[in-house]
Amino acid sequence: MLNLELPIIQAPMAGVQGSELCIAVSNAGGLGSLPCAMLSLEAMREELEAITAGTDKAYNVNFFCHQPPRVDAQREAAWRNALAPYYEEFGLDINDSAPVEDRAPFGPETLEIIQAFKPPVVSFHFGLPADDLLQAVRAIGSKILCSATTLAEANWLADKGVDAIIAQGLEAGGHRGMFLSEDVTTQVGSLALWPQIVNAVDMPVIAAGGIADADGVAAALGLGAAAVQIGTAFLLCNEATTSQLHRSALRDPTAVHTALTNRFSGRPARGIVNRIIRELGPLGDDVVPFPLASIALGPLRNAAEARGRTDFTSLWSGQNASGCREIAAAEQLRRLAAKL
Amino acid sequence: MLNLELPIIQAPMAGVQGSELCIAVSNAGGLGSLPCAMLSLEAMREELEAITAGTDKAYNVNFFCHQPPRVDAQREAAWRNALAPYYEEFGLDINDSAPVEDRAPFGPETLEIIQAFKPPVVSFHFGLPADDLLQAVRAIGSKILCSATTLAEANWLADKGVDAIIAQGLEAGGHRGMFLSEDVTTQVGSLALWPQIVNAVDMPVIAAGGIADADGVAAALGLGAAAVQIGTAFLLCNEATTSQLHRSALRDPTAVHTALTNRFSGRPARGIVNRIIRELGPLGDDVVPFPLASIALGPLRNAAEARGRTDFTSLWSGQNASGCREIAAAEQLRRLAAKL
Repeated sequence: MLNLELPIIQAPMAGVQGSELCIAVSNAGGLGSLPCAMLSLEAMREELEAITAGTDKAYNVNFFCHQPPRVDAQREAAWRNALAPYYEEFGLDINDSAPVEDRAPFGPETLEIIQAFKPPVVSFHFGLPADDLLQAVRAIGSKILCSATTLAEANWLADKGVDAIIAQGLEAGGHRGMFLSEDVTTQVGSLALWPQIVNAVDMPVIAAGGIADADGVAAALGLGAAAVQIGTAFLLCNEATTSQLHRSALRDPTAVHTALTNRFSGRPARGIVNRIIRELGPLGDDVVPFPLASIALGPLRNAAEARGRTDFTSLWSGQNASGCREIAAAEQLRRLAAKL
Repeated sequence: MLNLELPIIQAPMAGVQGSELCIAVSNAGGLGSLPCAMLSLEAMREELEAITAGTDKAYNVNFFCHQPPRVDAQREAAWRNALAPYYEEFGLDINDSAPVEDRAPFGPETLEIIQAFKPPVVSFHFGLPADDLLQAVRAIGSKILCSATTLAEANWLADKGVDAIIAQGLEAGGHRGMFLSEDVTTQVGSLALWPQIVNAVDMPVIAAGGIADADGVAAALGLGAAAVQIGTAFLLCNEATTSQLHRSALRDPTAVHTALTNRFSGRPARGIVNRIIRELGPLGDDVVPFPLASIALGPLRNAAEARGRTDFTSLWSGQNASGCREIAAAEQLRRLAAKL
């Protein structure tokens, strides 16, 4: 469908990569991705200019499709209350955390930008944008992908007419793409999710979640996937912008213990277990809705990181970080494709 | 190692199968299993007599290795309190639930029985028995298998000198074999768990969790497993003793939604989401320790089942029930082995 040399998509990972990784993967024969969830419109435009200058191969532009959060005074109070002891510990004032909105959903202004660049592939997370926006993306000619975390979500996306479904197994790092339910018990491991979605829908399925090496790629294709999407294995690549603290955490044997947590953003996402997950618990209602949770965490994260600590840092990782290598993305892609 | 015709172990499933399924699978070239967790010593002896009369092939005898529970008055009160409205709804008296101990761990008396029968394979769940008991099992000549749900458990078992490790991915139905941690966030999806354990230990790894068909079997072997262990796909087989209510639940499309729950026994186990899971939540501290939770549930389960309802029934299932077929176990085994 995408005429890729290799059926491997580099998963869009907001905050830890930009155009450089995307270009490297696309030029090496995979599908590089640009995560736009945390980019301003201006930054998005600059990154897309870099990509179109850097490769003439297909690339993917990824957006979040969450509903903007409603202000909830009770949860805001609960969240501040949960964080208050940490603010005290680090000598910070909770009123210093300014309410900046860092993750905007796909909307008319982002549509305008992609109308200008006409990316070969556009992928969505947390469901799809409103029908008129989706039609406008389709009119550009971009292939449309979207994550499904359950059979119900896959069927819903198939009805909406996407071009391919990304089946995101529970092993995956970062944010769960779940959008029809907030119940994390609905989330399914890759090995059970992929074949059930392949059997249910009549379109290409892209397998994601837990793939760390060439054997994992081969297993996914053997289970009926048309392609794979891999994130964690690219986190240590030279072209990723992963922080040194995050890189150290990924190299450590304790990276084997990750958890789904809503502590960093308000939505369930998988990261390496660290202090805030351990002390507050991975999931709870005492957190503000996505994406607002990161606001009050920001000053704590900065203060801790300044001391070399990851107490409040989102250390996104899937359940198998064993494939991470400190090499060029093109070389990592070749390793992943070694059994194709 | 076991000289099996087919590298497929039928997972021991206490409460839904006995010698008949075990014999059918072993005679068809797989490794049939007898779950002993819920059998009296007398029943265990009878079942082993049936198996040795019914097959001359290898078979597996499975035991739980939990610590006997401590009485905890506070949790007992919390559990009774949680169930009280249901007792009222069904017109029952909570004092009618007699404290019968239904799941005994492996101990000297069970050792005596297996010393008499010398089963080719003995497998353990929830860790291993005490060293002297383990040595005694080894002295019989039985190959020893044990479930690991994390890399740490696999390394622990390798140090103990088991003959093979069953890597139980998060997708698996029934009780999690976890024994080094009670933290369910440590639990890993099959696709991420299997290869990490294969890489870590120098012994055969048996892949379990989410395998529903021949493609799943092939994927597991491709990821380095020496064999697979499959449970759910045998639950509808003619030789299983799965109840009609449980069978109906497995055939229903809602079987796609399972959860890890400690509501039925006190330990996390995966089953199809039903009323008690929905209303009390899948996991909580307001339940008595394993295996005592089932005692107070018993009268409720019986009363509801008499009305054709599964409100309080443990509907064990993995995350992929799509492979269940109402056929003979030998035929199911052939289907699962179709791509070997």
